[in-house]
Formats: sequence, C-alpha cells, structure tokens
Amino acid sequence: MKILFYAPEGRPEPWLSELQSHLPDAQLRVWHEGDQEPADYAVVWHPPLALLNHPGLKTVFNLGAGVDAILRHGEQLPAGLDIVRLDDAGMGDQMAEYVSWAVLGYFRRMPDFARQQQQAQWRFLKPNDKRQFPVGILGMGVLGQRIAASLSHFGFQVNGWSRSAKSVPGVTSFVGDEQLDAFLGASRALVCILPLTPATEGILNRANLEKLPAGSYVINVARGQHVDEDALLALVQNGHIAGATLDVFRTEPLPPGHPFWSEPRITVTPHIAAVTLRQVSLEQIAGKIRKLENGEPIAGLVDRTKGY
Amino acid sequence: MKILFYAPEGRPEPWLSELQSHLPDAQLRVWHEGDQEPADYAVVWHPPLALLNHPGLKTVFNLGAGVDAILRHGEQLPAGLDIVRLDDAGMGDQMAEYVSWAVLGYFRRMPDFARQQQQAQWRFLKPNDKRQFPVGILGMGVLGQRIAASLSHFGFQVNGWSRSAKSVPGVTSFVGDEQLDAFLGASRALVCILPLTPATEGILNRANLEKLPAGSYVINVARGQHVDEDALLALVQNGHIAGATLDVFRTEPLPPGHPFWSEPRITVTPHIAAVTLRQVSLEQIAGKIRKLENGEPIAGLVDRTKGY
Repeated sequence: MKILFYAPEGRPEPWLSELQSHLPDAQLRVWHEGDQEPADYAVVWHPPLALLNHPGLKTVFNLGAGVDAILRHGEQLPAGLDIVRLDDAGMGDQMAEYVSWAVLGYFRRMPDFARQQQQAQWRFLKPNDKRQFPVGILGMGVLGQRIAASLSHFGFQVNGWSRSAKSVPGVTSFVGDEQLDAFLGASRALVCILPLTPATEGILNRANLEKLPAGSYVINVARGQHVDEDALLALVQNGHIAGATLDVFRTEPLPPGHPFWSEPRITVTPHIAAVTLRQVSLEQIAGKIRKLENGEPIAGLVDRTKGY
Repeated sequence: MKILFYAPEGRPEPWLSELQSHLPDAQLRVWHEGDQEPADYAVVWHPPLALLNHPGLKTVFNLGAGVDAILRHGEQLPAGLDIVRLDDAGMGDQMAEYVSWAVLGYFRRMPDFARQQQQAQWRFLKPNDKRQFPVGILGMGVLGQRIAASLSHFGFQVNGWSRSAKSVPGVTSFVGDEQLDAFLGASRALVCILPLTPATEGILNRANLEKLPAGSYVINVARGQHVDEDALLALVQNGHIAGATLDVFRTEPLPPGHPFWSEPRITVTPHIAAVTLRQVSLEQIAGKIRKLENGEPIAGLVDRTKGY
C-alpha cells in the first residue's frame, strides 16, 4: 500500500521511520503540491485541499482529535473520502493533567494566594467548599470522559454536557440545547473540550458566559473559535468570571498585543494542553490501516454531518 | 465525663457545641490558666504545659496530625498522659489536592509558561517525560499514602521514604537512613509530609537537598523546621532546585522581609494545605472518647519514643 504524510510543522523524518517500523511493507512518502501518483492512505495535520483530493485516496488519518481543519473544506471534500480522528492516543492523560491543575488551583484559591505573596501578605482565606464547586465539562467524548475521571478522583461533583446522552460513572449528564442553560448555571468551573463544528462555534458567547454563576472559572482546551474572546475578557474584567485558563485562541500564535497576555486573571498557554505523541499515535494509525487492509471495521471514523 | 477545650485561635463556641452534639452527656468547658477542677480529656491545639498537667487528665486529643507542639514539652509532660493525633479527618484529601496541583504544575512546566506570558511570548516548550519525573514522598503515614494515591492516579512513578518499610500499592518503598540518599537521588519532585521529631528536624539541609537531581522541585507541607531555609534559597537561586512550593516555615507568619516572598521560583502559601475540619475532626474525637469509655482500643495513639 502507498501512504502519504503531510504536516506543516516539524521534520517529517522521525514520523516516517516510526510509521515504517509498524508497516514494513508500506511505501511511505511526504506529500508535496503537484504530487499525482496515486496513494491509498494519508496521515496528515492541517492538510491543504489538494492533498485531500489526491488520486486514489481512500482514508485520511488526522494527527489529532479535532478534525475541524479538514472539515472546514466542506463541500469541496471528496464525497467518498473517509476521515479518521485520533482516539485519545495519550491526549486524554495530558488533558486530564492540564485541567486538573487548573481546577485544583482555582478550587484551592492559588491565584489569590499568589496575589497575597506579591504583597508579602500572610492571610488565611476561607476555603471553597467542594459541595459548592461543581465542575461542568462541555463535550463528553473520549477526552471529556478522561478529564471527568480525574476530577471525580478528587471528589468534585462533575456535570457533563453533550449532544447525545452519555452514561459515565459519577457524571451527571446534560443533553442538548434544552439543558445547556441548566448545565451552565451549575458550573462553578467550566471546561470546554468540544469538537469545533458549526453547532459549537461561538458557544461561549456573552449570553452563555453570563449564565455561569458569579465568580466562576473558565478553562478552554478545545478551540479558540468556541469563545467570544471580547465577551470573555469583559466578563473577567467586570468580575463575573473570576479567572480563565486558556490554551487555544482564535488566532494562534496569540498576537503580541492581545489583551489576554496582560490580564492577570487569565492564564495563557501556547496550545500545549495535549500534544500529539508520535509513538502512540502512529502505532494507533498503523493498527487501523492493518484492520482496513483486512476488511475489518475501525474506530474513530468521522461523521461529517455531526462534524466529529 | 469532663472535657477541656483549648485552641489559641478562633472562637471556641462552634467547637464546643459540635462536640456536645456528639457527646450529649459530657461536661465541656474552655480551659483557662488557673483552672484546677479535675477533667478526664482535653481537645487542644498548641496547648500550654499547664493544661497538659491538668488534674485528672488521662488523654489529650490534638486537633491536627502533627503533635510536635505537644511533644516539644519533652520531659515536662506527665508520664501517664496519652496523646492522640487526628487520623486524616479530611486532611488527606486536602493534602492530595495541594500536592497534586504543585506536582502537575511543575511537570507541565506551568511556571515556565507563566514567565513566557509575562513577556507575551508564544513558544512551545519540550514537555517533561513522566518516566523521567519520579516523585518522592518523605513520610508515608496516612497523609503520605493519600498523596501517593493521587500521584499514582496520574501515572507518576512514586517513591516513598519512611522509618519502617511500608507496602503501598504502586509505591516503591525506601527505608531508613541507609536508603535516604538513593531516595533523594531519584526524586525529580520531593514532597515532605514527615512528622516533626528530633530525627527529622532539619532533614532538608544543604547536603540532602544537593542530593536531589539537578532541576528538581521541592514541596513542603509538613513543618518549616524540616528545612534549612537558607540552604533551600541558595539552591533555588543557583538553579540546582528549579522551584519550591512551601506551605510551612520556621517562623509563621512568614516575616514580611523574608526572601521567600519575593523569590519568583518559590511559591508561598500561608499554612493552608490542609485545615482541620471541625465536623469530621470532632466526630472522630468523640468516637474515640466513646471507645475509651467502653474500654476499647483506639487508633492514633502517639508513641513518644518515635515522636508521632
């Protein structure tokens, strides 16, 4: 079989040799604009449309969980092309670490203690009560469920919101548009791990952010396009939202003059909450290619109507 | 039975009524200097020596896990007095939250990202590898074991050091003075949750801190007297120790001019890692008093020769 590789950042070499080690018989090559020799599969990150229309291409494997950079090509995508996302592949653990760090820090008032340290001020602050600190997770796929497990480990009450009902141990499920307001109103800390689709773009707009309880916290590890950044900034500055930890932004890299950089109640990280781990990701993709070659079904096939 | 209450900080009232609700037949009173009416038990925090020598006193219950403030009276303590420490009583969960927050933050390089944010700098930083980030816990009693469980949940390799061998699932046990060097040399993050005794006072001196791998982190949630503060500061400033999170200090409140306040690689919190929870603590103490009244054995009796 023939496999194309494309990723705009970093050196392709270690990826190709790692994939080759799992599929010794495959013919691998880096895709370039103008390449017309037919191929069966492609392993990609942020692919141009031409690659997705490559002759012979049956299945494209995305080197991440979010496939919005592929689906944004919309109607121009070939109808018969199968799109496969990464299932977890080590990202769940990383997301759980990042989100647990942020939630524990807010729950234990670490930003308040940091402000006191700046003033050399030794002062006891009333601890938060866990019964009054429910955490809401927007998006209860594989990654959302992994995050929920870590928050449950610490005894947080966890609510999950998703498009379809999910039965996850220890998590109260909220479903669809009609339960979104109730979910938001019960989220002292809100974690966004949704796929980016036309239905979720801008979901954290001013109206929805205002439904959070006063003094709540926002953690976004999904996509910058989920958030109305001006509204979030205004609500942080007027105190309705007590703090935000953001790993993703509408424009990345976040521009040097962006007000998020200097807002003390906003923590900015450079899209590092979960990185694609080469070994585990390529092992997973190679396994799926072998299954497809044997005519077996695979997990992670994207439903284009849902957008994930 | 007659029970004395003494705590130098805060209002005694809610404590007395809570304890009374568990022991309706008990005669409770706040102890004052000069009180000579015999009593059976005392519930105390930082008691003066006169209270510990109170007429008739059989057992003193400490409102905390660390009994160093009682044992410091040494030979002047009445020989027959039983001293009982709190067993966990909600402190384990709090310690696990605090330490997990600190360890996850260091592991995920959050202080480095915070420094980048101050410069409006968007830059990927190479993630730490969990296989090269073992965490060492000094002190594997109830609280150390609870911390270990949370770190294990996140997949950290956890080593525990204690005076006697402990068999804790997922934790590699190091025992006694002869294994301390090996333990320290393997601790990329070091957590101190030891009791303060003559044997542990100053254990984090310069010689021992230098045995940590270069670029390691120190988290102290035990007592300030475990640490040589000058040595720790010097090793943070010369880079051998990459950061420290300290909840306890040799002098508390930490004096306004203390260099820890302004060292950017040191996080200072005002002895809040685990607060004594009134309800659960008094429920536990009341349960032990009932057992003693029935002639049954209780947990948490302090061994004066060990110091905890």
